[in-house]
Amino acid sequence: MIQLYWKNATDKVVGDAHGVSQADLDELKPRMCQAHEAVKAQIDAGRLGYAALPTHAGYAAQVKALVDKYRSTTTDLVVLGIGGSALGNIALQAALNPAIYNLLSDARRGGPRLFVLDNVDPAMVSDTLKLVGRRGARGLLVNVISKSGETAETASQFMIFREMLKKKLGDDFASHIVATTDTEKGTLHEIAIADGYDMLAVPGDVGGRFSVLSPVGLFSAAMCGIDIDELLAGAAEMQERIATAPCMNPACRLAAIKYIATTAKGKPTHVMMPYSNRLYPLADWYRQLWAESLGKRVDRDGNEVFTGPTPIKALGTTDQHSQVQLYREGPNDKLTVFLEVKKHPKDVRVPDDFADVPGLTYLRKTKLSKLLSAEKVATEYALAASNRPSVTIRFDEIMPHSVGEFIYLYEFVTSLMGELLNIDAYDQPAVELGKKATFALMGREGYDDVAADIKPFTRVDRNYLS
Amino acid sequence: MIQLYWKNATDKVVGDAHGVSQADLDELKPRMCQAHEAVKAQIDAGRLGYAALPTHAGYAAQVKALVDKYRSTTTDLVVLGIGGSALGNIALQAALNPAIYNLLSDARRGGPRLFVLDNVDPAMVSDTLKLVGRRGARGLLVNVISKSGETAETASQFMIFREMLKKKLGDDFASHIVATTDTEKGTLHEIAIADGYDMLAVPGDVGGRFSVLSPVGLFSAAMCGIDIDELLAGAAEMQERIATAPCMNPACRLAAIKYIATTAKGKPTHVMMPYSNRLYPLADWYRQLWAESLGKRVDRDGNEVFTGPTPIKALGTTDQHSQVQLYREGPNDKLTVFLEVKKHPKDVRVPDDFADVPGLTYLRKTKLSKLLSAEKVATEYALAASNRPSVTIRFDEIMPHSVGEFIYLYEFVTSLMGELLNIDAYDQPAVELGKKATFALMGREGYDDVAADIKPFTRVDRNYLS
Repeated sequence: MIQLYWKNATDKVVGDAHGVSQADLDELKPRMCQAHEAVKAQIDAGRLGYAALPTHAGYAAQVKALVDKYRSTTTDLVVLGIGGSALGNIALQAALNPAIYNLLSDARRGGPRLFVLDNVDPAMVSDTLKLVGRRGARGLLVNVISKSGETAETASQFMIFREMLKKKLGDDFASHIVATTDTEKGTLHEIAIADGYDMLAVPGDVGGRFSVLSPVGLFSAAMCGIDIDELLAGAAEMQERIATAPCMNPACRLAAIKYIATTAKGKPTHVMMPYSNRLYPLADWYRQLWAESLGKRVDRDGNEVFTGPTPIKALGTTDQHSQVQLYREGPNDKLTVFLEVKKHPKDVRVPDDFADVPGLTYLRKTKLSKLLSAEKVATEYALAASNRPSVTIRFDEIMPHSVGEFIYLYEFVTSLMGELLNIDAYDQPAVELGKKATFALMGREGYDDVAADIKPFTRVDRNYLS
Repeated sequence: MIQLYWKNATDKVVGDAHGVSQADLDELKPRMCQAHEAVKAQIDAGRLGYAALPTHAGYAAQVKALVDKYRSTTTDLVVLGIGGSALGNIALQAALNPAIYNLLSDARRGGPRLFVLDNVDPAMVSDTLKLVGRRGARGLLVNVISKSGETAETASQFMIFREMLKKKLGDDFASHIVATTDTEKGTLHEIAIADGYDMLAVPGDVGGRFSVLSPVGLFSAAMCGIDIDELLAGAAEMQERIATAPCMNPACRLAAIKYIATTAKGKPTHVMMPYSNRLYPLADWYRQLWAESLGKRVDRDGNEVFTGPTPIKALGTTDQHSQVQLYREGPNDKLTVFLEVKKHPKDVRVPDDFADVPGLTYLRKTKLSKLLSAEKVATEYALAASNRPSVTIRFDEIMPHSVGEFIYLYEFVTSLMGELLNIDAYDQPAVELGKKATFALMGREGYDDVAADIKPFTRVDRNYLS
């Protein structure tokens, strides 16, 4: 069971000006209970699709059926997706398989190598295309993930990989593509039917950034040997834990601390700092969840608020040698959330050596997990000594169950933050203009007006070149 | 030649409140010229070691001699280092070799696989140790990088890898270790002499975060086939370009915009957003440079200032689907620095397909580089439409020369920012307490006092567990 430890975010440790006091929490409590009620009501009304995912046996069954069909013949799985169609996949793979997974032999891995192409970087796409093509494409499976099929990045990658598969495999190409998309309509849905791909569902009522526990995130995970039943069970357990303790559960506690820190203690910058390389990409998943859900110009009453804490990721111990100088001595505007692991998936012991070297002798016979853990406490202590608040989320182990717990915890915290900030946490209106501008710049039909608006902007003014 | 384009950071584009005006620049100019003079004087006095690196032929020669000795027999190079002894290595490798480099065959790579272990994550170290050990260690070279040899993370990794090499290779182990360390004294220096390793210099007068163009960063790069002469030539060219145009060069321009944005326009958050996966790890290198150099409690007169812009990394297009919602609609507190590439190392063309699918037809026959470039301009435009300032650093190509230019540019900008903020940009006093606390928690001799201070802190108070 993951646990939240929050003493070091309180006034008792970092002082009144920077820490959350019991009075702050008491004052917020009625609103927090209302917020929890409101989220619960939305869930009960079926308006928050993500809440149904942990116990949606149908999706897991569909995913497992396709995994049974494809796993034994697939040596390379390429996921084409971006944003919510990639960050969860990357985070699950990083958390639950070794960092060197793709470098292992087919036999040692058991499942396919995994490439999640979440950008249209020309070199990256070209290099990956060649690399997987070199094995002949017989063992290649492409999982294209897009609700509409019209996301420019994913669509262009899809066209490129589909062409490659057709060239290498002829008519058989369609049996090397799984489309995760809208179940009823849309460009990718129609192509999948015409070409004859297996399909998985992007649930209609779940936004991209809340979709990791749907087939969007589950298929690549299960293909790579991750126990998705346990992942969902963990999420379901957190859901139950939250539901059975209204306003007294870890989600409400974490939301309260984050909200008070942001609005009353001058801490709009929220660092997530795992002391674990495996958990680091979860911080990227969190960055999207936090930024897109909470970064909003207007509240639900239409007032301009320009709200939204800025999420930052950092890695312990690595960023002690990069960011901690700033976190301790720069502006006291950050709340740090440490992720800590009690039992790591593997461990290494430092040999009993250099007994006569004063600077090294204390390291002898220690486990790296002990050193990592000491460094985490040391950093927490050093931040506290400079009145910088932090909380810790503790994982007993990095397992599908605990990762599932964490995911649901943060999704729920995001919903609570949306309520407290009185904003719509489920839209992303500011993304539209960029999409339209891209279409206009690419000459897509119907975007001539936007193209005209952009034209003066795209001309390079040489007076501003240095 | 890399170029800075800064029109979209001006009042003309994003308005008075958020943009830098000509009046702002004129007002700052005398101070900027003084700052440039001051940095120049420090360089001339030999106090800023990093400035000597681009033209230090000796280091490059030493590195190349060792590369000649080791390259043909090395199939795996493991770098043990952290912070400034890792971030530059990772950034150079990512920028100048394919992302899939380690997955290529020995023949296709030419050089060794590269593993930079910049953390003591137990699972990562254990997995890597096993992976490279499986090839028998005959082709393994360990490059341990530490000025003192007493950095806890690097020292413990070093002890582990040294033991492994001894077990596998017996007395021959020493010819599989290259120590990059202090040239005269220190724990690692002494061990290297006793064991008989080849050594490279960590220059005494160059801080870790400014050391990428010293043997610290050059050796792994050259081992992996990167042209370090061109890298240094690029840095030297930027140095020359800055020197010959006092206060009118790209470094002074960029520093002026960053300084004004931070201190007068409410933009303490500085995003670096490359539109290139290869350049993304340069943003991590920048994060250290920026955070450790500029995040300071006191100015040079001893006044408490708690200064320091917060560096953030983002990746285009990927983070358009994650962070841009916040960047456009959240608090207008960010200055974005885009990195843009004109000619990518490789390119891919979308096939001429789906002519009858309205949502895809505009993508036909386009190159991914064109799409990436359009998305960058679209994002820049969308930010500007919300009065969010940005600047762009343009790379003609991603080559050792342009990467060298970029590195020196940012190092110099950092020095200028230090002058303008009137702080010491070359120390990192806040890191010490965490180090001491780690020693205390690990039971190192001589840290009993610190241990006593920490003791109450480490006891878990169950009242704060959720």
